[in-house]
Amino acid sequence: MDINPNTQLCGLLGNPVAHSLSPAIHNAAFRELNLNFVYLAFPVEDLEGAIQGIRAMGNLRGFSVTIPHKVAILPLLDGVEKTAKNIGSVNTVIKDRGRLIGSNTDASGAIQALRQGDVDLSGKRVVLLGSGGAARAIAFGLCLEQPIEELTVLGIDDTERTTLAHDLRSKTPVKILDESLNPDTLRMRLPQAQLLIHTTPIGMHPNIGETCVPKDLLHPDLTVMDIVYNPLHTQLLKDAKTADCRTIQGVEMFLHQAVGQFELWTGESAPVKVMRHVLTSHFS
Amino acid sequence: MDINPNTQLCGLLGNPVAHSLSPAIHNAAFRELNLNFVYLAFPVEDLEGAIQGIRAMGNLRGFSVTIPHKVAILPLLDGVEKTAKNIGSVNTVIKDRGRLIGSNTDASGAIQALRQGDVDLSGKRVVLLGSGGAARAIAFGLCLEQPIEELTVLGIDDTERTTLAHDLRSKTPVKILDESLNPDTLRMRLPQAQLLIHTTPIGMHPNIGETCVPKDLLHPDLTVMDIVYNPLHTQLLKDAKTADCRTIQGVEMFLHQAVGQFELWTGESAPVKVMRHVLTSHFS
Repeated sequence: MDINPNTQLCGLLGNPVAHSLSPAIHNAAFRELNLNFVYLAFPVEDLEGAIQGIRAMGNLRGFSVTIPHKVAILPLLDGVEKTAKNIGSVNTVIKDRGRLIGSNTDASGAIQALRQGDVDLSGKRVVLLGSGGAARAIAFGLCLEQPIEELTVLGIDDTERTTLAHDLRSKTPVKILDESLNPDTLRMRLPQAQLLIHTTPIGMHPNIGETCVPKDLLHPDLTVMDIVYNPLHTQLLKDAKTADCRTIQGVEMFLHQAVGQFELWTGESAPVKVMRHVLTSHFS
Repeated sequence: MDINPNTQLCGLLGNPVAHSLSPAIHNAAFRELNLNFVYLAFPVEDLEGAIQGIRAMGNLRGFSVTIPHKVAILPLLDGVEKTAKNIGSVNTVIKDRGRLIGSNTDASGAIQALRQGDVDLSGKRVVLLGSGGAARAIAFGLCLEQPIEELTVLGIDDTERTTLAHDLRSKTPVKILDESLNPDTLRMRLPQAQLLIHTTPIGMHPNIGETCVPKDLLHPDLTVMDIVYNPLHTQLLKDAKTADCRTIQGVEMFLHQAVGQFELWTGESAPVKVMRHVLTSHFS
């Protein structure tokens, strides 16, 4: 598809953006479906200025939003979807007839990654490691969009963790526990859990041998999802495989948040295989 | 060249932009030189908002500016090159280390089109038909960048024409005449002229048979440039060929204003043949 005066622009607002895979993944998907779209990365410090430009320039269809703007962007938008509002962060903006609407496909992407991995969430006890932005998105996704039984948040930042737990208790019907993340709490909670989701940076490149979960706590009834996607096979996922756990790679959540964005902007079903190939070939 | 997080964006600011050839011509040139640039068209009403966005978003390298923003943009920029300032309009913006600098490659493009057509301007008497934005740009190009002898501006809008003539007299060393555009003034001025430049819309698609210049006034010592480029061969240029005049097509000025923009943004010599081919193949 050649670029012409009707080509729609999508892009990434963040800082830094230099290592983002979003341009590669979205442009490959646009090409695959022969859609007249282009996706570019925009390093942005002055978010208000960028939003004014986005309002003023036609042919801008939508944006991905990343660090440090995911929370700050909320008051600059014309509307925010319910889950994103509850999470308090937006990773996707669509410009629709001049209105800027925010949503959070990290939440829906995590749920979709679990669904695609044939994980049935209903009635399950889930342990979530970490309480940062990704953990918030996943927690609200699990508690608002899926009828899980119980969510235990284990994190090292007490304020962040208790705030998340408080928000979940007040806004969702799910039973919420929260405790410090350490070997003792893991030893107490993991035996009864059916799903473990790891959202801390532990094990991320270059610290690829690290994990915060003692091997002997992994059991075959546990599904393990790691949102770290570089490397594809983290130490946690290797240990989980050895323990006969079902595993879901971080690349799947990254993939499905991008799929959600693509489908919001284009209204088309995303070419998931092509998009996954861009990610997996990059990391392997 | 695949799009990646370092891809630089250029684009067109105007309204409407739906029929612009600039995306086709610039993207073909970027591809030819394997440059990591993309050019898109942005319909813009709120120019101030767009400029704020352009300031705030990284990876934006420059813009073409077209109707209705060529004059209004001047006070929004951090600097304007001398010829553009004298003309009072900007068709090109480059963002250089955060500063937005305006210039006018309509002026330099017209001069370049004449040079490429082997037209020696020194000591020449020039008749310019029309006194609008393009005429202003060409007139200042001829009077500031080239030592022509005399410029006669013939136009039907008295205020616009006398303003242009006044500005040229006060800012350039060239002898300036100005008169109403009609068969009598043409008959008086064309016999002594060596160059005729037509900048009115007469003869533009769909009125392709029209011309304001009586055939019998065209003589072999006259070079005729028409800035109308749709059709490529206007009635004026056909008549000029028949009269054994040297002719320069409007597409050459359009081409060279784009070449000037490309070279400002990229710092590379533009692939002129590739760019000309995009234009001529579109119109033939």
